[in-house]
Amino acid sequence: GLEKKILVIPGDGIGQEVTAWGQKVLMTIAKNYHHTFTFEEGVMGHVAIEATGDPLPHETLQKARNSDAILFGAIGHAKYDNDPTLKVRPEQGLLKIRKELGLYANLRPIKLFDELLEASSIKPEILRGADILFFRELTGDVYFGEKMRTADRNTASDLMIYHRYEVERIARKAYDAARTRRKKLCSVDKANVLEASRLWREVLQEVAKEYPDVETEHMFIDNAAMQLIKDPKRFDVVVTGNLFGDILTDEASQIAGSMGMLASASVGDSIGFYEPIHGSAHDIAGKGIANPLASILSAALMLDISFGLKTESQRVIKAVEATLRQGFRTMDIANKHTVNDCIMGTDAMGAKVLENLN
Amino acid sequence: GLEKKILVIPGDGIGQEVTAWGQKVLMTIAKNYHHTFTFEEGVMGHVAIEATGDPLPHETLQKARNSDAILFGAIGHAKYDNDPTLKVRPEQGLLKIRKELGLYANLRPIKLFDELLEASSIKPEILRGADILFFRELTGDVYFGEKMRTADRNTASDLMIYHRYEVERIARKAYDAARTRRKKLCSVDKANVLEASRLWREVLQEVAKEYPDVETEHMFIDNAAMQLIKDPKRFDVVVTGNLFGDILTDEASQIAGSMGMLASASVGDSIGFYEPIHGSAHDIAGKGIANPLASILSAALMLDISFGLKTESQRVIKAVEATLRQGFRTMDIANKHTVNDCIMGTDAMGAKVLENLN
Ligand SMILES: CC(C)[C@H](C(=O)O)[C@@H](O)C(=O)O
Ligand SMILES: CC(C)[C@H](C(=O)O)[C@@H](O)C(=O)O
Repeated sequence: GLEKKILVIPGDGIGQEVTAWGQKVLMTIAKNYHHTFTFEEGVMGHVAIEATGDPLPHETLQKARNSDAILFGAIGHAKYDNDPTLKVRPEQGLLKIRKELGLYANLRPIKLFDELLEASSIKPEILRGADILFFRELTGDVYFGEKMRTADRNTASDLMIYHRYEVERIARKAYDAARTRRKKLCSVDKANVLEASRLWREVLQEVAKEYPDVETEHMFIDNAAMQLIKDPKRFDVVVTGNLFGDILTDEASQIAGSMGMLASASVGDSIGFYEPIHGSAHDIAGKGIANPLASILSAALMLDISFGLKTESQRVIKAVEATLRQGFRTMDIANKHTVNDCIMGTDAMGAKVLENLN
Repeated sequence: GLEKKILVIPGDGIGQEVTAWGQKVLMTIAKNYHHTFTFEEGVMGHVAIEATGDPLPHETLQKARNSDAILFGAIGHAKYDNDPTLKVRPEQGLLKIRKELGLYANLRPIKLFDELLEASSIKPEILRGADILFFRELTGDVYFGEKMRTADRNTASDLMIYHRYEVERIARKAYDAARTRRKKLCSVDKANVLEASRLWREVLQEVAKEYPDVETEHMFIDNAAMQLIKDPKRFDVVVTGNLFGDILTDEASQIAGSMGMLASASVGDSIGFYEPIHGSAHDIAGKGIANPLASILSAALMLDISFGLKTESQRVIKAVEATLRQGFRTMDIANKHTVNDCIMGTDAMGAKVLENLN
């Protein structure tokens, strides 16, 4: 068996409730497959600001560097959303850890479980067979460019900036993945308006030459936001910048039925970082109704990508599938049109997945 | 009757084919309602670069300033999309005319014609009753901030920047409109990451105080991109920046069944500028199959907003409705599941609308 150190950072809001289940799944897998996973916990976000004044305390960062992989929950709190003038903000913790750990590639697989075909607002015949892998660049773009606010507070700016090497490395990762899939890559930018996008497109055109077996398409972000809903099956691998990736993958959650189903892996220099795509959802936090499947599927991604445990990862995905097949649903994926589904809370749903793992 | 000078700028690609029908509708309305509309034509975009080297020739801008309203088609050409290094680009013409004419508010009404309920990839029960009015800020943001490319060409940037007065004036326009509708306003930003968005949110919160009768909601762009597809009926008026507005309104085209149905009005200091939301669509340009309805509905917006001709504007909308009710469709709005629709080209469709105007 493998020995691995995992740092768990539940973060804010429903992060607390759902991450517990991602961790339990990892513990069950370790037991069943004779691996030794040791867990530490770290604080980040609003909870860390409350406890230490810092959204990413030095101690958490240290623990992160000493771990083999990180399971993260969510970040954000209504207090900061309602007051844009606050200087110290939860999201700074997440952005800083992404940068410090060199997590430049955020993989977001969008795939619909057959059982959820009716849960989406999109027609089943449009969705059936859709299977997209997003590569979102995660440590550059307008997220990390210089921010400015004039002394009179009347002008504010953020620099959207990309360097060639940043585009090159994410492009290669995306092309490598496309090779193992349906060999189609769509790069999304706004090259008709933005200089950063024109650099993006130039680099993609260059890297494309190294992958003549992969079919490349360039699409403007506005068109991509439309095509994703109009015809999701036309996409295989999509590669895009930090901001456009943020927007498109949230939108794409409707392809998977619900945001509560989507996991992501952030990788780069060394350590992998795994988190649901959903946020802290403070409107439902503490109510015990959040969907734990995105955290559980994030754990599955960790097993596969960071630990190379493909069998174990597939086992988790099968357990999620089985749970859905048995008709168990959290509120967000309940089908309003059938009476057969059994709607349950976070813990009951998590427990069903654990049962199906055994 | 009124006397009005209208500048027609067909622009590139399908712009040429569809704008002819927007103009014919205006001519028919003038005849039937005893107005005197005089038309001039101007070049802009790729066609203007080919003819003069300049995407917005001085002569076109002069004509624009001397007109009462402008009917525009589309802009863009594959040549430039394929070569991001070209310095002179069609889109510069459109951006420049927006800036020069002070067209800071882009209104994009998203409403589904009942007859097209089945044409969308989204389920009819999700769409029925959806009616959104977007206010996209059009002369600021990362579109107009300083662009930079280093001498080694390895780094590129665009400045995302907003000034208080820019946010204030679009906010007021949006709130004023919300008052005449369902009194709900959703402002979209990314205030958890971007300083420009934090200014945006601060200003919106201030302006909101002047409109206590309007319910205000703030939403992050990633969440908005999801909610728009999940539950479009929750939105009434949406106000957002230039880039986010570009993305969300293209995405929202799926609510109206097709991009080929959506018109927009750009207003601000004085002259109104009317254009379909769709682009030049070079893949289908010259084939005579583009949907002329977005241009025709843009003409309807002109009659209403620039000329105050509400009856005439409604007459055009009713003619479009009648045409759809008769089962006439262009390819983009054809329902693949019924055999009753009659699929026709641009000119046949435009002619049907003219018939229904008489
Ligand atoms: C919380 C926020 C900073 C974050 C982002 O925008 O990257 C989130 O939306 C995400 O997608 O991980
Ligand atoms: C052609 C392009 C510059 C333009 C934009 O991004 O504003 C278009 O997409 C639009 O929405 O009018």
